[in-house]
Amino acid sequence: MRIGILGTGNVGQALASAWARAGHDVVVGSRRPDDPERLTELKELITSGLRVEGCAAAAAHAEVLVNATPGTASVELLRTIGAPALAGKIVLDVGVGFLEDGSLSHPDVSLGEEIQRAFPETRVVKTLCTIDRKVMVAPESLEGPATVFLSGEDAEAKTVVRGLVTDLGWADDALLDLGGIGTARGQEHFALLFMGIATATGTYEFGIRVVLPDTAGTGSQGLPHGQGAP
Amino acid sequence: MRIGILGTGNVGQALASAWARAGHDVVVGSRRPDDPERLTELKELITSGLRVEGCAAAAAHAEVLVNATPGTASVELLRTIGAPALAGKIVLDVGVGFLEDGSLSHPDVSLGEEIQRAFPETRVVKTLCTIDRKVMVAPESLEGPATVFLSGEDAEAKTVVRGLVTDLGWADDALLDLGGIGTARGQEHFALLFMGIATATGTYEFGIRVVLPDTAGTGSQGLPHGQGAP
Repeated sequence: MRIGILGTGNVGQALASAWARAGHDVVVGSRRPDDPERLTELKELITSGLRVEGCAAAAAHAEVLVNATPGTASVELLRTIGAPALAGKIVLDVGVGFLEDGSLSHPDVSLGEEIQRAFPETRVVKTLCTIDRKVMVAPESLEGPATVFLSGEDAEAKTVVRGLVTDLGWADDALLDLGGIGTARGQEHFALLFMGIATATGTYEFGIRVVLPDTAGTGSQGLPHGQGAP
Repeated sequence: MRIGILGTGNVGQALASAWARAGHDVVVGSRRPDDPERLTELKELITSGLRVEGCAAAAAHAEVLVNATPGTASVELLRTIGAPALAGKIVLDVGVGFLEDGSLSHPDVSLGEEIQRAFPETRVVKTLCTIDRKVMVAPESLEGPATVFLSGEDAEAKTVVRGLVTDLGWADDALLDLGGIGTARGQEHFALLFMGIATATGTYEFGIRVVLPDTAGTGSQGLPHGQGAP
């Protein structure tokens, strides 16, 4: 699949490398594709064979366009690419916007919803924003299975994104479809609890697992990850 | 321990019964302690031996005062009791404020912080607000261990509250101390993801478990709930 990744930070780099390893055709979009200094910072990515181009080129390349830019700047960046160039594309949105004081830049809504509203002809799927980039691409690094959430209006787009998330190593039954893009709000607001847990445990490399009722009535801790069967 | 519970809704009733069963001296505070209709609704609670009195009487009784009132009304209700009557008390705050549209009534702060600020001489501990009332008092009903969070400024108060949460059946290592009362924001904002998960799974009776890095390097799913040792 042709993937374009907007954002050359830690998240964008981790996802680009992982999807390239999984056999996808990945182009990374940089806001400064001709800046030698920035290209030096991305040397590892480039020497591994990944192409770094401008954001518009990455978008043009993409069947699935990944937003891994800072959430505070994402809508503005997408505007520079323009609605016509984005029309019909699946936008896999990982971004969360933080202000300097640690609060969310979209407190009463979500970035996912804002992108969907600003670009109604795109098909936005919010996912992966509840976990750190290292865990994103290495779910097996945790002591047990964690849950990844999906939010979006377009069922086909969610199926495609589900496939891309499993390509990162996530089991299909680790993915929980929350519903429409309005549910992105819950995923993004979790960032505040995420920060609390990270501070308390001393690591960003954790997940959360949805633990359902014990329908088997055994109280067992070893049941499979049966989110589909409450 | 002498516990006062503000709020006679589902959460207040569940907690009152569970702590009474655990041997605590519980008084439930109702806003309408003399309303025969309301007392009829609380018949089950009363016939089980629990005392229902006014909010001020419940507060006067309490070493630990539990706020299980609707989050939109909690600060105002506490004001009717008054800061002098609340001074020095531990306030175990379970409340989350929702507006009619499903958004939070305290989007840029938290109810826990607001109570602490409005009544600086109380010792507020936010906890239990990330789970449904049925799970609150029956953690063993889940398919595996979930996590309960604590937020508050006063270490002694958190130790007392920790004891009360374990009295509900939670293992001590299921409790994760997030830090100061500012971290209550993360707990309360999780309500948005909670609602999404509840809709997606068809049940309110779930928990979330913090899944830490697999420091043993085995990828085992059967490791103990080692939140203290990231």
